[in-house]
Formats: sequence, structure tokens, C-alpha cells
Amino acid sequence: MTQRPNDTRLSVPRDTENDYSLDAARIRRDFISRRTGADLTHTGSFSISPEITRGNVENFIGVAQVPVGLAGPLRIDGEHVNEDVYVPLATTEGTLVASYNRGMRILTEAGGVRTTIHERFMQRAPVFHFDDARGARDFAAWIDARTEDIRGAAEASSSIAKLSHIERYAVGPMLHLRFNYETGDAAGQNMAGKATYAACEWIAANHPGGARYTLSGAMDTDKKHSQLNVLHSRGARVIAEVRIPSALLRERVGASAETLFRARLNSFAGSVMAGSANNGMHAANALAALFIATGQDAANVAESHAAITYVRLEDDGETYYWSITLPSLIVATFGGGTGLPTQAECLDILSCRGPGKVGRFIEICAATVLAGEVSLAGAVVAGDWVDSHEKLGRNRGKR
Amino acid sequence: MTQRPNDTRLSVPRDTENDYSLDAARIRRDFISRRTGADLTHTGSFSISPEITRGNVENFIGVAQVPVGLAGPLRIDGEHVNEDVYVPLATTEGTLVASYNRGMRILTEAGGVRTTIHERFMQRAPVFHFDDARGARDFAAWIDARTEDIRGAAEASSSIAKLSHIERYAVGPMLHLRFNYETGDAAGQNMAGKATYAACEWIAANHPGGARYTLSGAMDTDKKHSQLNVLHSRGARVIAEVRIPSALLRERVGASAETLFRARLNSFAGSVMAGSANNGMHAANALAALFIATGQDAANVAESHAAITYVRLEDDGETYYWSITLPSLIVATFGGGTGLPTQAECLDILSCRGPGKVGRFIEICAATVLAGEVSLAGAVVAGDWVDSHEKLGRNRGKR
Amino acid sequence: MTQRPNDTRLSVPRDTENDYSLDAARIRRDFISRRTGADLTHTGSFSISPEITRGNVENFIGVAQVPVGLAGPLRIDGEHVNEDVYVPLATTEGTLVASYNRGMRILTEAGGVRTTIHERFMQRAPVFHFDDARGARDFAAWIDARTEDIRGAAEASSSIAKLSHIERYAVGPMLHLRFNYETGDAAGQNMAGKATYAACEWIAANHPGGARYTLSGAMDTDKKHSQLNVLHSRGARVIAEVRIPSALLRERVGASAETLFRARLNSFAGSVMAGSANNGMHAANALAALFIATGQDAANVAESHAAITYVRLEDDGETYYWSITLPSLIVATFGGGTGLPTQAECLDILSCRGPGKVGRFIEICAATVLAGEVSLAGAVVAGDWVDSHEKLGRNRGKR
Amino acid sequence: MTQRPNDTRLSVPRDTENDYSLDAARIRRDFISRRTGADLTHTGSFSISPEITRGNVENFIGVAQVPVGLAGPLRIDGEHVNEDVYVPLATTEGTLVASYNRGMRILTEAGGVRTTIHERFMQRAPVFHFDDARGARDFAAWIDARTEDIRGAAEASSSIAKLSHIERYAVGPMLHLRFNYETGDAAGQNMAGKATYAACEWIAANHPGGARYTLSGAMDTDKKHSQLNVLHSRGARVIAEVRIPSALLRERVGASAETLFRARLNSFAGSVMAGSANNGMHAANALAALFIATGQDAANVAESHAAITYVRLEDDGETYYWSITLPSLIVATFGGGTGLPTQAECLDILSCRGPGKVGRFIEICAATVLAGEVSLAGAVVAGDWVDSHEKLGRNRGKR
Repeated sequence: MTQRPNDTRLSVPRDTENDYSLDAARIRRDFISRRTGADLTHTGSFSISPEITRGNVENFIGVAQVPVGLAGPLRIDGEHVNEDVYVPLATTEGTLVASYNRGMRILTEAGGVRTTIHERFMQRAPVFHFDDARGARDFAAWIDARTEDIRGAAEASSSIAKLSHIERYAVGPMLHLRFNYETGDAAGQNMAGKATYAACEWIAANHPGGARYTLSGAMDTDKKHSQLNVLHSRGARVIAEVRIPSALLRERVGASAETLFRARLNSFAGSVMAGSANNGMHAANALAALFIATGQDAANVAESHAAITYVRLEDDGETYYWSITLPSLIVATFGGGTGLPTQAECLDILSCRGPGKVGRFIEICAATVLAGEVSLAGAVVAGDWVDSHEKLGRNRGKR
Repeated sequence: MTQRPNDTRLSVPRDTENDYSLDAARIRRDFISRRTGADLTHTGSFSISPEITRGNVENFIGVAQVPVGLAGPLRIDGEHVNEDVYVPLATTEGTLVASYNRGMRILTEAGGVRTTIHERFMQRAPVFHFDDARGARDFAAWIDARTEDIRGAAEASSSIAKLSHIERYAVGPMLHLRFNYETGDAAGQNMAGKATYAACEWIAANHPGGARYTLSGAMDTDKKHSQLNVLHSRGARVIAEVRIPSALLRERVGASAETLFRARLNSFAGSVMAGSANNGMHAANALAALFIATGQDAANVAESHAAITYVRLEDDGETYYWSITLPSLIVATFGGGTGLPTQAECLDILSCRGPGKVGRFIEICAATVLAGEVSLAGAVVAGDWVDSHEKLGRNRGKR
Repeated sequence: MTQRPNDTRLSVPRDTENDYSLDAARIRRDFISRRTGADLTHTGSFSISPEITRGNVENFIGVAQVPVGLAGPLRIDGEHVNEDVYVPLATTEGTLVASYNRGMRILTEAGGVRTTIHERFMQRAPVFHFDDARGARDFAAWIDARTEDIRGAAEASSSIAKLSHIERYAVGPMLHLRFNYETGDAAGQNMAGKATYAACEWIAANHPGGARYTLSGAMDTDKKHSQLNVLHSRGARVIAEVRIPSALLRERVGASAETLFRARLNSFAGSVMAGSANNGMHAANALAALFIATGQDAANVAESHAAITYVRLEDDGETYYWSITLPSLIVATFGGGTGLPTQAECLDILSCRGPGKVGRFIEICAATVLAGEVSLAGAVVAGDWVDSHEKLGRNRGKR
Repeated sequence: MTQRPNDTRLSVPRDTENDYSLDAARIRRDFISRRTGADLTHTGSFSISPEITRGNVENFIGVAQVPVGLAGPLRIDGEHVNEDVYVPLATTEGTLVASYNRGMRILTEAGGVRTTIHERFMQRAPVFHFDDARGARDFAAWIDARTEDIRGAAEASSSIAKLSHIERYAVGPMLHLRFNYETGDAAGQNMAGKATYAACEWIAANHPGGARYTLSGAMDTDKKHSQLNVLHSRGARVIAEVRIPSALLRERVGASAETLFRARLNSFAGSVMAGSANNGMHAANALAALFIATGQDAANVAESHAAITYVRLEDDGETYYWSITLPSLIVATFGGGTGLPTQAECLDILSCRGPGKVGRFIEICAATVLAGEVSLAGAVVAGDWVDSHEKLGRNRGKR
């Protein structure tokens, strides 16, 4: 270990962190190339202006070029989208686009996916500390009595965020409050944080004897799956449903509705034993690919991949009702990375760029997830799961 | 709804799914641009050859340009890396790189992060169905007696995968088997699937009376967080540890070791109530950014973000021992998206490209995660969490 | 297998199920004794009148004589009890009473246990089924608008139950409603069931197009631990707290506050990995013993044993703050088995018999649980855990 | 608060804790009666000799008389029991015995319950502490190499306990070991504790540099439900299965197989959202009643109530396959409270007293649980759930 971290000749100059010029990017690339021998030709090849990444990244050196494939058409019978759409998926996993494509074809031929949004909130959950549990309980009552004042303080911090309701969870000498906001077309983590900070400061100033708090007490639960999110939604709670004729399934995936239903039942038991965040297949695949393509925060795959699959055979024995509930889908069509060039373009493919479009985007995400469930479930049951990876050459020449 | 899904004039021609020429990409872009009005100039601007994406994507239309920032130096005292490294992070979330950068500085000044890999396996978990539970139990005994044959069948399918052990979980009339493989420098989902398929086919051919099975019974648990993964590792089980002097914490984050420790204790209680996949802060942030930069499967953030933080104040009361255990970190330095141009370059920045480097990469991932935990925990406690988002202009001009 | 189930000579006559005479009990004992050879002398020895068990049991044959030991005094600084109490514990597990006794001594010498009740509700959670998720969502809005009518219908069914609030959980084409009632001094499962049934029937009669429902959709969650109960309380949410000087701990359990604190920290990590319903020691021990002694429903140990331990060393480094939060403690001082003779006597020992006493009983339960945590934690750390079982002769002569 | 805890006139003399004479019991009753005014006539009425409770309780004052009802016949097609049995249930919850009775009739008429035991172990899980994670990992390898020595040390402590295998879980600088023992007809918590203590002491003496450990690191998980127990069995993993003709269900519970199956599917979704320990109905009811009647440790209802229900409609559409898997059923026919008089008598009713009978008892427990599931599920669906409580007078005159 010969490097000294404070050797300025070798360090990325910290005070240029926010210099978004092409020169600064090049200087940083040169620095790291000299140091590591890495050739950064492709990383340094981009069509976007570094300046546009201000507010999205620091110490910019270039871009990751992530391949985007197009899947579709996918027919959606939603409340914010009611048409066939094509979905851009940024991924490096072979067969993913092809598999979603197949699923979309089945769903479309079945008449389309019905999508329904139940609610959508973003949270920040501070914890307040007291000498004992009674202090926490009495504080809870005080909060109840001052909710309107707290709302005023929170909402004054933002032109968008609206405080919907405050959940309360008591443990030991503490009270966790979970503030729920409507955040327009933004994902809203930052405005929820800012509004909650304002609310907490108001509380600290007005609660008799003040208040000790930490702005997050781990019940948000930010960038983490939790049962709490499954119950109370983080981001959107959205449901995608389809009814697929058995004949169509037999044609497209080579398995009947009944076979697929049986396999799902069996998997439910495995899922319960495993203590899984998702009793379906792999919502994370669609979401990660959509998130990267459209400038979502990819870390939110952690929360967003949770899902509850509910299926049944209809009375006719020939129709498969398939639904997936995503209880904590965190997305935006405004703010964050959604304004970056390729990301905005991919949102345009979906007609989901900017204000007023988040409902549409949520429904497309849910419908896309369902397409993947149907396709993969079919592949697993039909025994061509392993083969498809082979056929599409995932590993050919590279592994 | 005016689109008809089978209108070939409007569909992406399905039979060109695997045409990786520039022309095919352009034709697809033109198709979707005409249909949606989306201008795909930036998405269509890339330095890589589409042909190289064969095996990584289908229906290629271009690339997502995801900004990459550089954080570091980060001093690591590992078994596969023992030096200062700089870490490329692909993200669109402002402050992320800056925050990791700050954390890395603290960890480096504290003498570096100690990283330890406990084990690393990739799984595929088929479920076998019987008439009753006794069939399943007797089958379990048969599997025990034929383990070597099964290993032979599985390993014959791959030049890399080595079958380590088979877990067993009984429920109702079924037996779930969870095959654990060592998969070299690849993540190994596909080779694990292929090997397990071979094993299952061997079993079906040799077990008296045959065997009915589904290749996945949801106990893998692929692309999904689960308690099972926390217990038994999916991908790598790796631990990052550091001992930080309180004085350093006071200087860099404005909070003493004791204050940070107290905040962590409080959050543990919140985490338990929430039923959270991670009792720390936000491992998902580092992992998503590293995964995108280096060609990992970003969907694996679902599994990989699980973590267990264990902290304590050392006897001197002035040293903060901080550890994070990542029980299911799924990464590769070979195969999947790691060979794509910008992704390979970013692996080169870490000296982690290709065979023999996965241990090094795992340790860097874990150390980076810990850097973020320390930095964010400091920001939350010091009350500058909200401010930093403001100061770095995350929303400026865009929200 | 020679018995035929419909052979009336050998069956317990089903139509005498509700004959609570001594003769009926004797006839049943004679029947089963002849059939199995079992001598039921002790089971048939009881001081209570069988008639008093009407409403508590069917096909009465006698009693289980469960030994009751007395622990205490336990000093409680509660809101419903503020004195030293002695606690009757019905158990067959050697060392249990002695261990709680030791813990009570420590807590009492430390100045007593502070107990705080946050809230108390009993639930019934029907699920309503619709053609699709939109039906469920629109129904949720309708429920919101008619809450007062629903409350009226529910409360008309009972002179005691008061409907506090209704939680809502959407999944697929269903909406789960979780009705929360205040149920006076009764545990309230039955009145909650009856009131919810009345509410559902009102809904079915008044909702346009009617309503299909099942009275329980598994979100109650009756007789089952769940994360939902941890978050939203089933029965009482009660917290017991104590501050114990390190010197007292050293004297009574041979370990300092710091040693005990360290052990707790270590165990927290184990508890998180295990996915445990309780990150403390063994609340179930106290609760099962108290429940049997006082006529509670012992099956509710399933829900009631959940707990969150929160501990810290106070700033002086010499005081151990220890709290345990029981989020779903289900108890009663009225109804169920509380009126049976020995059970009522044991409630009398606690001055907890009948109306108006449930708050006191809840606080005693929580304080008793904490006593066991302190005692067992001390024993584990001091290494006399195994020894104590030996010394008190648990196995002597019997194993 | 006027009592002083050290006022010996008012205290139960601590040094008589182990005096099991009738006099000592009376003196204790007199003491507490004088202090609280409680009349302990019934508690002081018992047919058993206090001396026999030595090793089961301390500070004995008398008994709880818990009513026992008889349910059955229940036809079991097990491997340790293959006949019709009658089951004694100690409970104070009205309708419980009647409901199980109904379920048993259905199961018997359906041809009986098939029961299968997969495995049975008792655990103790010490945690070993090291300076860092590498210490823990190297220790794991050392443990592997010395397993036979460790087994020798453990088994030397007991004439019964056999060490089956040791699970390992790494977190931070610690290694949790979970020792699994076969414990004959005893539940085995104590012998597992004693054997593990011996093993740990051997390790500490022989591991280079010694070893710091705590005998339990919360991964046992003793007296607590956990996902770990669901996966790896604590006590017995036993499965009960039945195939019930739809006609029989219609006759006995007024609902078809299809209706019951649909209701179960719906409840599965609720159970997943709730994060429930049991996706069935109420295993805890049967287990608590059986445990109290037969001298089991009632606190183990915490672990034992976990269950996984797996159901399906058979191909004929007219047969309902219903299974329940109890992954952590902790019972004994020897040791603990099983030797007490009424408890031994109730074991005699089941022909389950003493050595060699634990397999039979496990199967009876599982079959009884299934009977309750069928009966309650039928009652919920048929809408007579609320009524039955009313009809059997649960609350009559008492609430």
C-alpha cells in the first residue's frame, strides 16, 4: 500500500467536485487512467453536455453506455394510459427484452392489462426520543392535537408536497412518526425530507420542553425493502391484472392455465418458507431496466421489487386471472434523472415526460412487470427457461 | 385505443430481434420515433458497436447514457485488495457521489476498511412434487444417498460450476432442493440453472418412479430479497469493518462516536418494527451505482441490498467499531454485462476486469457500502442531510 | 385399525357435548378409560363444579392440575398499579418461577418497573372481493364516506365494543379491512367478530351492487404472530422500562451493565438474521405461565410473545436502561376463562379480577416479562444458565 | 406504594423456595391471602402431592384447574399411530373443543389424516466473538476440522443427546453456531443447553487463543417464532395431509371444496401482506390446549404455532387436498411436565406416555391441528363462525 490519500498529485481535486466542464471531466479521466491504466475511451464518449448532469452526479468523468432494447407492443387498459405502448428497457442481461416482449404479446392478445393505482405517498420517518415511554405516549397525543399546525409547517417548505397523514409507531422511550406526502410527479424523497425537517423543527420549537429527534429512525424505509412498505405503500401501490385464455397460454408458452396455476400454488409455499419480499417471479428485472432507461433512482429497486401475486382459475376452468400488486413502486416523471437527455428521450417513447405523467408511467411499469411474470412463469413450466438463455447466446463467446 | 398489435406496419419486426447491425437499430428508432414523436438523438449516440451487445440485449435501439462520477480514494485492507482505490459510480442522484466521497475520506483517514469474504455461492432451487409428504421425505433420503451422482450430472453441464451442497426444505407433499454452486468469476445464475436442470433430469431418469419437478420453486430466491438469503448467502457473504476515532468523526461529520452509536441503536428498534431487509442506511445506493457502472445485473440490487449493521463503542469510549455484513451480494467480473465497453473500462478503474478478480470486486463493493453508511449516518445526525441535497443543487432548475 | 368412528358404543356421545353434570363427566372418563386403559383419577379430581365450565369447554372430563408458583414482590410504577405485587405463575418448567423471582428482586431493588400502555384494540379483518382492483379501490372510497354508518352498525351489536378505526390493505382484486375495537376488560375477539359481522352485513346490504366478503382474510391476525401486529398492536401495546445500577447487576447476576449491554447488542444481530418475532429473550415464558394461571386464552401466546427490546447504557456508563415493548399483548380480566374458580383466585392475588382491571393486569404482565428478561440475560452472561437448571433439579429423577 | 420489598414479614421466604411440603404451600397461600384478600380455596384444592412438582415449579402454592374436554375420534394414518384416537384438550375457550370435534369427524369420515415426520432436532446457538470478521471466518474453518472432537465433548454431557449437525451464521466479527441435537423423547432444551455448554468449553480450551462466547446469541430461537425455525425446524417438522370429498364438506360445513379452496387462496394474500407466522388459521388453539393437558411447555406455543398450509383442488375438481406443515413443533413424552399426574393421565389417553412415544404424540398433534383448520375454515366460509360462539354460550352470563 503505497498511496497516501492526501497526496494531492494523485487525488481527484476535491474542490473541483462541482466543475461540470468537459475539461474537468477529461482531467479526472486522465488522472484515473494514469493511476490505473484504464483506457476510458468509451466512458469519455458521450453526446450529452456534462453541465446538464449538475445536480445528478459529482466528479463527473463520463457515462456508462447501457444498451437499450425495445419491447412491445403492450396493450394497457389503465386509467392514465389506454393504448398499446412500446417499452424501452436498459439492460445487459440477455433474454430479458425478449422475454418481456413475449409476455407483452400474450397480455396484448389476451385483451390487455388492466392497471389500477390505489394510492401514492412518499415518506420521511423521524424518531423522537423521551425520558420514558410515557413521554412518548403523551407526545403522540400532542401531535394529534396539533396536526394542522404541523401540516402548515411541513407544506410551507415546498410548493408541491402535501402532507397526507402521519403514522405513529411506539417503541421503548421513542415515538417514530412516518410522514406521508403527496409529491406530484416527483419521486419526492427530497421534498419529503425537507418538509419533515421543517415539521420537526416546528415541533421542537413548540412542544413544551422541546423535542429531541433524528430525522430518520429507519422506518421510512428508504432504499430498503420492508414489510411496512408492503403494508402501507412507499411510492405507488399499483395493481396490474389480466385474464388469459388457457388456449392462448398453450399456444404461446406451451402450458395450460391449470398447469401454470398449479406451479404458482407450489411456489407460494416456497416463497412463504423463504420469507421472500415477493411471492412472484422477478419484478426487479423489469423495474431495473425501466429505471435505468428513464432516469429513475435505480437504488429504489430495493423497495420497488416487492410484490404480491394473486392468481386464480376462473369458474370456467379455462381462464387464468393473474394479478400482481406492487406496494412500493417509487418512480417519477419529473426531477432526479428524468431530465437527462437519453432518459428524457426514453420517457418520450412512453409519452411520460414531465408533469402530469406519473400516473401513466406507474401503470406502464406495473403492466410491464406483469408481462415478465407471465413470460417467465411460462418458460419455467415449459422447461425452456434454461434453453432460452442458451439460444439467445447470453454467454456465447464471453464466458 | 386505435393500435392493433398485429399491425405489422407499426410493430417492431419480431424476426429482427437479433439483428445487431447499426441499421437495425436505426430502423427500430425510426419506427418508435414515428409512432411516438420521441426524438432519440442521444439514445442513438453511442461509441460502442451494437454487435457487442449481442447476448446482452434484444431489439437494441441505442444506449442510456448514465453519468459516472468518481469517488475516492478509499483505502481497503482486504484479502484481495490492499491499497487505495477510486470507485466509479453511475447515478443520476445528486449528492450520492459526494456523500460516498466524504465517507471514503473518513474511512481512509481511519486507516482503511477491513474486508472479509465468508463464502460465495449461486443457487437454483427446484421443487419436487409427490403424492404425499412421505414421498417427499423418502425422496430426501434418496437424494442423500446419491449426492455424488447428482454432483456429477450437474457439473458435467459446465466447465466452471462446482456443486458445493444441496439444502432441503420440506413443505406439504413437496421437497424444495436448493443447489449451491461455486461459479468462478461469473455471477452464475445461468450456469447454476443449467447445472441444476441437468441434475434434475438425471434425478428424473434415475429415481425409482421418476420425479415431477419445476426448475424453480421460489426458494432460489432469484431477484428477490428473502430471509433465506440473509441466512444462507446468495452470491457473496462479505463483511466490511472499520474502527473510527471519535475525534475524526467529530471533525468530519460533526458528531461524536457516542452520538452516532446512540442514533444507530435507536434506528435498530425502528428497523425491527418495520421488518426491514437492512438495519443500516442505504446499501442500495452504492450497489446500484456500482452495478450500473460495471455491467452487473442491476436487478440484483433486490437481493444485494440486504445488510446487517453491527456497531459498538470500544472500551475506550472513543473508538467506533462499525461493521456491515452483506449476505447476498451478487456480482461478477466476467460474463453478463461486464464485457461491454464502458462497463469493462469502469472495471479497469478498479483493476477488477475478467477472471480472477471477483474477490477484489466484492471487497470493493463492501467497502464502498460502508463508506456510504458512515457518511449518511453522520449527515442525518448532524442535521445537514437535507441541506446537502439543497447545496449540491439536486433540484435546481429541474424541479 | 379396528375402531369404526360411527360405532356408538365407543364414541363420546356427541349430543351430550353440552351436558355439564358430574355424571356426564364421569361417563366420558369411564368411556375413555375403558377404551385406552388410562386411569383418570387425578384428572377427575377437582373442586370446581363442571357447570361453571359451560361456555369454556365442551365434552368436559375433568381438569389439568397445573402447578402454580408465586413470584415476587415486584415493584411496579405504573398508571394502573403502583405498588409491590406477587405474581402467580402456572408452569411445569423448573427454574421458571425462581428465575422470574430473581428478576423481580432486581427490578424492585432498582426502584421498580415503569409501565406504560400506548393503546389497546381487538381486531377482525374481513376481506371483500371484487371483479378487479378498481372495484376494490372504489369500495375503499365508499367505506371512507360511510364510516359513521358502519360504526353504527358495528356498535349496535354489542354493549361494549367501540369501533376505533378501520385499516385498509389492498391486494389484487380484494380489499382487506381491519376493524379495530375497544373492548373494555374483555379480550374481545368474539365481540369484535360479532360487531364486524354486523358491519359487513350492513355494507353488503347498502353498498351499491352488494358485497362479497369473507369474515376473516387472515389479516386479523388471530392466534398468529405477524409483523402487522408488531406495527399496529393487537390487544395492548405496553412498554416496561427500568434503570438498573451496574453495581446491583454485579451483585445479583454477577455481570456489569456494560457486559449485559454488550451481550444484548450481539444478540440483536443474531435476532435480525433469524428473522425473530422477538429480539429479546423469552417473553413467552412469563406470558404462558400468567395466562394459564389467570384464565387467559393460552393460544394468544402466539401473538403476545412478540417483543422489541431496546436498551442502552446511560451517560454515566453505570446505569442500564432496559425496556421491552409488547406490541400485541392479548389479555382480559373479564369473560373467557377469567371467571373460573382457580383463575379468578389468581386474578385476585393480583387484584385484577373483573371490570376495570385490565389496565392493571396489562401492566403486571409487562413488568413480569421484563423481570424474566433481566434474570435470564444475567444467567446467560454469567454462565450459570445451564447450572441453574441442574441445581433446581429440573431433570432429577425424571429424565 | 406502602410495601417495602425487604420487609420479611410480607415476603415469601426466599429460602423456602424449594420446600415442597403441603405446609409450605399452605403457608405461602396464607401469606398471599392475608396480603391481598384473595381466597385460594380452589387453587389450594388438588389431588397431587406437592413433592411431585419438584423440578417443575418453585414457590408452589397450589394448582390451576384447567378444564379438559375430549374430542374425537380422530382417525390417523401415521407411521407411529394408525388408529382412531381421542384427544384431551385443556382450554377455557368455549367452542374450541366442539370445533375440533367437528373437524375430527370430517377428517375421519374422509378416511383419516396422513401424518409424516421429516426430522426432529433441538437447538442451542452460542455466538463466538472475535476481533474482526476474519477471526470469525477462520474459526469457522477450525470448527469444521474439529467437528468430531466437538461432538465427543457435547455428547459426553448426556446419555441421550446426539449431535446431528452444526449450522453457522456469520455477522460482523461474530460467528453464530447452531447446534442441532436428537434428544429422544424429551423436548431437549436443557440437554441441548448442557451439551452445547460442554462443546463450547471444549472449544474455548482447545481453540488456539481460546474463544469468547455467549451460550445463546438469539439464533436458537428459544421461545420465539422465527423464519429460521420455519426453514430449519426446531423440534419436529411434521406434516398432516388429508383428501376430503367435496360432498362431505358440503354436508358437514355447508361449503364445497371449491369454495373453501377459493377462500384459502384469498387468505394467502392477506397472510403475505401481514407477514404472518402461519398462513393457515389457528394452529395455536390446538397446540395450547394439547400442551396444557399433557404437560408440555406452553411457552413453546410461540415457536410451535408457525405453519404453512398448502392446499389444492385435485384434478377431479371434487377432492380437496389439504396439508399443514408444522416446522417447529416442540413436544415431549418424557421429562418436563409430562410426568405430573393429570398430564401423564392425558398422555395415557393418547397412549403417548414415556419413552418411545414422542413420534406418536407428534403425529397426533399435527392431525389435531389439521382438524381445527378444516373446521374453522368451514365455519368462516359458511358464516356460522360468529353464531357458534353465541350458541355455545361462550359469553353467556359472564360477559
